[in-house]
Amino acid sequence: IPSRLPDVGTSIFTVMSKMALDYGAINLSQGFPDFSIDRQIIELVHRYMVEDHNQYAPMPGAVALRNAIASVIGRTYGRSVDPETEITVTPGATEAIFSIIAAFITTGDEVLLFDPSYDSYNPAIRLNGGVPVHLHMRQPDFSIDWAEVRQKITSRTRMIMINTPHNPSGAVLSAADLLELERIALQHNLLVVSDEVYERLIYDGTLHQSVLCYPGLAAQSLAVFSFGKTFHATGWKVGYAVGPSALMKEVRKAHQFIAFSVNTPVQLALAEYLQTPDHYERLGDFYQQKRDFFLEQIKGSSFEPRPCKGSYFQLVSYRGISSQPDVAMAEELTQKFKVAAIPVSVFYQDKTDNRLLRFCFAKKEETLAKACEILRKL
Amino acid sequence: IPSRLPDVGTSIFTVMSKMALDYGAINLSQGFPDFSIDRQIIELVHRYMVEDHNQYAPMPGAVALRNAIASVIGRTYGRSVDPETEITVTPGATEAIFSIIAAFITTGDEVLLFDPSYDSYNPAIRLNGGVPVHLHMRQPDFSIDWAEVRQKITSRTRMIMINTPHNPSGAVLSAADLLELERIALQHNLLVVSDEVYERLIYDGTLHQSVLCYPGLAAQSLAVFSFGKTFHATGWKVGYAVGPSALMKEVRKAHQFIAFSVNTPVQLALAEYLQTPDHYERLGDFYQQKRDFFLEQIKGSSFEPRPCKGSYFQLVSYRGISSQPDVAMAEELTQKFKVAAIPVSVFYQDKTDNRLLRFCFAKKEETLAKACEILRKL
Ligand SMILES: CSCCC(=O)C(=O)O
Ligand SMILES: CSCCC(=O)C(=O)O
Repeated sequence: IPSRLPDVGTSIFTVMSKMALDYGAINLSQGFPDFSIDRQIIELVHRYMVEDHNQYAPMPGAVALRNAIASVIGRTYGRSVDPETEITVTPGATEAIFSIIAAFITTGDEVLLFDPSYDSYNPAIRLNGGVPVHLHMRQPDFSIDWAEVRQKITSRTRMIMINTPHNPSGAVLSAADLLELERIALQHNLLVVSDEVYERLIYDGTLHQSVLCYPGLAAQSLAVFSFGKTFHATGWKVGYAVGPSALMKEVRKAHQFIAFSVNTPVQLALAEYLQTPDHYERLGDFYQQKRDFFLEQIKGSSFEPRPCKGSYFQLVSYRGISSQPDVAMAEELTQKFKVAAIPVSVFYQDKTDNRLLRFCFAKKEETLAKACEILRKL
Repeated sequence: IPSRLPDVGTSIFTVMSKMALDYGAINLSQGFPDFSIDRQIIELVHRYMVEDHNQYAPMPGAVALRNAIASVIGRTYGRSVDPETEITVTPGATEAIFSIIAAFITTGDEVLLFDPSYDSYNPAIRLNGGVPVHLHMRQPDFSIDWAEVRQKITSRTRMIMINTPHNPSGAVLSAADLLELERIALQHNLLVVSDEVYERLIYDGTLHQSVLCYPGLAAQSLAVFSFGKTFHATGWKVGYAVGPSALMKEVRKAHQFIAFSVNTPVQLALAEYLQTPDHYERLGDFYQQKRDFFLEQIKGSSFEPRPCKGSYFQLVSYRGISSQPDVAMAEELTQKFKVAAIPVSVFYQDKTDNRLLRFCFAKKEETLAKACEILRKL
């Protein structure tokens, strides 16, 4: 029985987290917080379980949660979305992205995406018969070359995937980027998938440019968000997609046969928790402090940080220390020096290696300090 | 932008549950319990949340849960499976089935399945480019005609999907069925997907025939199970797939990019809860009582029950009351008489209508009694 993904191995996040565990390394590889989540949301989940909310939620998501999401979007992006038809709650942003691709991509359709790119995009496209067309973000600033995008559009191009704030680079798209994307999407009738899971992790006063803020663009976009990122609970696996009802209708057709619905008590707890804007509006400050702490601590080492404008990832160049490939460098760092990081070349289809490592700073100061103490010695 | 599932509407379960709500009907349509779940498992989930188990579980499932599942399988089916490579925890059985199909089915591959069939099978096959080949189960006993199966196998046939105990009919496959399936699967090198989510809901002393019990068959099968069914918590969305490591390796490749992982505290709670065999071994008795109560209560009505050997669904013929199509009958029953049921024709690709309704008896006696009081009056 032939494999449909013969060249796919185990995801780098699994590989590096396991290596960190096996070698007793401080794990700054896979993106997840190492601190406690808010006790209040735990108690809310408990209460909804005790109050017998343990059966199937509606397929598009619990009504209370979709309503709460709609008002957060109104508050945050000044945009009114219809919770009945324009929001779908999913078991994580990954499933949202997969369902969107499954709903629209068919054999031979080309999808434009930008490397370094999150590792699920390419296989999700291929599993649905699509043809991933990988472009490179420009160095050293990880910006998008829109002229090149225009050149790569063919009659088969159907979709373009963006991700801002960007994993792994920490780059963010500007208003000019989104306006240019809007022109391109409208001109070529492209669907836009916008991975905005780090929407609230954006620093130095920069505003997150959501596709939801650009009406023309929003009309042909599906934006994807994550409660795991926003509430520090990556293991709860709840995300959502937002988009115009005509598109969302098709996404739901796929979603209803891929996952059907999402954990009910967790959805209801999130709905209630979202009533307090403080729970999500201060997230940028919170993580900016962590980024700054990490940068402060890594100062005096031979690692050279790149600009990080968003996400909870910090790229660093290790050219001052070693010229070995980044995969070897990440392994050595994990196994010998006991700090695990992600080699950035794995996010490139062609394995481009800029000698960069990605560190996750969603960690206690104590964790970051210990890791940097090691890094300063290299 | 053309739809990939143009003919797909909203799942019948969503439609009927919504109609029940809108018309204030007793909801015996969508399959879910209306009674409380065990408080102990709620407290376990709470404890694991409080103890900071809120980040990503390993992609194939929490180690403790996979170990617990392996020992339950050993205890139940006398089969030793390797938790490291042969079990994958999924966000519900639906996602397990989708991931299996995504891992193996490619454009033009034929998949044999038996109508009435669960509503996610056909679209899951089509979304992956496969060709669903629907056979009919025989009337009136919903048995499988294996001679016909042999006739329908072509050089493109790659997979065969079974479901025992069967939703919606309540039929179960016998040892003879599984032995014949084994011969066919081995002879034609077919993959078997075995939906066994109702494994423990089997009555009158009958033994569940799992593909796991037939070594030749198990070597080319992926079996799918559901904690939602077994622990009355359909809204928690946790299931798992079991199969030989060479096949499971491919399933995980798809699963890791479709959903990646499953709610961590729930997984750890389930692992601990499974330590007490009483929590799952008495489920058959529990639901057999419910089935018998429903049958007792419906006696004296003009509805004629069909044999139910497993699952929590009871089929009844309404020919004694009306000759209208089953969809109209279900609507009338819901809207006018305030009892919601599922019309069985929706489980047939060709909409075969045997004038049967499906009632879910996973309900409090009080709920079943009230519904039957109405049904007796028709
Ligand atoms: C799904 S595990 C990966 C988590 C993550 O988003 C990352 O580390 O980039
Ligand atoms: C996923 S909702 C459907 C529940 C169910 O299995 C059924 O009612 O048949």
